Amino acid sequence: MTPPPATRQAAPPEVLARCRDQVRPALAQAVRQLHPWHAEMAAFSLGWAATDGSPAPGSQGKGIRQALTLLSAEAAGAPAQDAVVGAVAVELIHVFSLLHDDIMDGDETRRQRATVWKAYGTGPAILAGDALFALAVQTLAEAPGRHSAAAVRRLAGTLTDLVRGQADDLLFESRPWSGPEAVQPHEYRWMAENKTGALLGCAAGLGAVLAGAPDTTVEALARAGRHLGVAFQAVDDLLGTWGDPEVTGKPVHSDLRRLKKTYPVLSALATDGPAARRLALLLGTGNPLADTEARRAAELVEEAGGRTATLAEAHRQVDIARRSLETVPLAPAALGEILALFPYLVDRTG
Amino acid sequence: MTPPPATRQAAPPEVLARCRDQVRPALAQAVRQLHPWHAEMAAFSLGWAATDGSPAPGSQGKGIRQALTLLSAEAAGAPAQDAVVGAVAVELIHVFSLLHDDIMDGDETRRQRATVWKAYGTGPAILAGDALFALAVQTLAEAPGRHSAAAVRRLAGTLTDLVRGQADDLLFESRPWSGPEAVQPHEYRWMAENKTGALLGCAAGLGAVLAGAPDTTVEALARAGRHLGVAFQAVDDLLGTWGDPEVTGKPVHSDLRRLKKTYPVLSALATDGPAARRLALLLGTGNPLADTEARRAAELVEEAGGRTATLAEAHRQVDIARRSLETVPLAPAALGEILALFPYLVDRTG
Repeated sequence: MTPPPATRQAAPPEVLARCRDQVRPALAQAVRQLHPWHAEMAAFSLGWAATDGSPAPGSQGKGIRQALTLLSAEAAGAPAQDAVVGAVAVELIHVFSLLHDDIMDGDETRRQRATVWKAYGTGPAILAGDALFALAVQTLAEAPGRHSAAAVRRLAGTLTDLVRGQADDLLFESRPWSGPEAVQPHEYRWMAENKTGALLGCAAGLGAVLAGAPDTTVEALARAGRHLGVAFQAVDDLLGTWGDPEVTGKPVHSDLRRLKKTYPVLSALATDGPAARRLALLLGTGNPLADTEARRAAELVEEAGGRTATLAEAHRQVDIARRSLETVPLAPAALGEILALFPYLVDRTG
Repeated sequence: MTPPPATRQAAPPEVLARCRDQVRPALAQAVRQLHPWHAEMAAFSLGWAATDGSPAPGSQGKGIRQALTLLSAEAAGAPAQDAVVGAVAVELIHVFSLLHDDIMDGDETRRQRATVWKAYGTGPAILAGDALFALAVQTLAEAPGRHSAAAVRRLAGTLTDLVRGQADDLLFESRPWSGPEAVQPHEYRWMAENKTGALLGCAAGLGAVLAGAPDTTVEALARAGRHLGVAFQAVDDLLGTWGDPEVTGKPVHSDLRRLKKTYPVLSALATDGPAARRLALLLGTGNPLADTEARRAAELVEEAGGRTATLAEAHRQVDIARRSLETVPLAPAALGEILALFPYLVDRTG
């Protein structure tokens, strides 16, 4: 097998930065179309500004979604620029979902700053989310070129999946930790495929759609993005329990303290062994866990194999993603950059 | 001038019922695509079911938007059936906006039942709204025929306007009752044109778009719908202060008690005469008004001419709507039914 030509293959951090830089002007222009109040909340949420509107660069996130859109377009043989409008729509939807999900989940901080509803109020945060949602649809619907309608169809299907995933996640909260009604790992996987996978799948798929790629190419890239999303969620779950608070910005054992139903816990419980049963008792009181209880729960999850199972699941999902990309011809340089993102995202620490 | 042929011109209640009946199966089918939890909330909000999902017909509203969509298609020379998908999208957006606006406005009842957030919780109501929004876009994006993309573009622009109007309405709340920062009647009109007018304009415009009408026809119908929407809002404001509680289902002087900035109050205050100044003092304490204060405030609004000005504004808007329809050729029977809706909506008592 010949290795891909090494004409241009930057390391993941450079790739992500390059894509962020290419999308930023169009994203900023889209945000300027919003009502000034919503533009301010969007700039805050995007890490561009403080609550008073002054420039105060916060963390802007890795930008994995926008990178996937541009790289997918290149992989499908088009210039990245053709897909910028898709990357903008995906970023707007990402911010929309953060704004609304943070309200539903009662999360008060994100990336070590206040969440939008906490800083601006619930009503304004709901409306700003709606504004971003509308702007995303409008951006694609009014995009020039022949692929606008197909892009909108893909985004609309994604939104439906996204909402379905969030609904299942919310409903998991009221399900018991053990017994026949307990949430099974496969149900969690399905939820994550919708809640996290759908938007990454859309990001990759939109790049190919806007590149005018054939359906098989669009589907292969979308499928890869979707499974990468599930892997991403699994790693997020690992970091939510065993991540370094200095890096993640969240307290140690954060997800366990808050009794979040995550993949490590659910796969531990599903083993139904002695550690799983002790874990179910510990979690089943319904009260948030204190320091020692959370540490004990983390040990039990690990003892029951939940940590190993989650890491294995992340790798399994990445393998599916990788294999999906082998089914269609793609431009080698861009493909190489996409593939290099996979271990970078799975082995991250924050 | 020859009168329009009297082959088919039913009275407004019959027209509205006929259109509701024609849209209902497609709307029900769309709602069935939702996550079951969201389908339940949608059915509740549409007045089809009680909170336990059992059939419990509540008020389903007049259905003015869906009627405008079907009649506009007919006025543009197409069968009403061609526009059913547009009517479904508009109804879904209407319910979405009710769900979210009721949270933002803190409204606990609507049509004499609990609002969705009150019955199901804030988080679920936010998400159900998002689901309806996504479904509306998807419904149009996947509609068969050549006009789907144009229909999505029109819906997307409408959503942007809708959100902008709601933002202005929320921001009005924190503005003073008098002085240079007071909300002026023309600002209120602009807000209402977005918040209420945009969706009625979209309803009418979509009917014409889906009928394949030329741009001038689409714009004439959309413009008529938009102005009809402002008239509708003005009448709503009159009913919110002087409506019969037995008919409206709201307490007497409801809007004044809650210090809502409505057209009658704002146009009364803008006269800046003695009654306006007494009214500003009464409202300016910032506390909700008790029975006698609310009655006194209603008298002052009337004395300052706010009630007359609002009714005049409603009629002025309907005149603009009517004139807009005279600028293009339209099928006489459907046009007659559209025009008959105007006085029906302006002279309504609930």
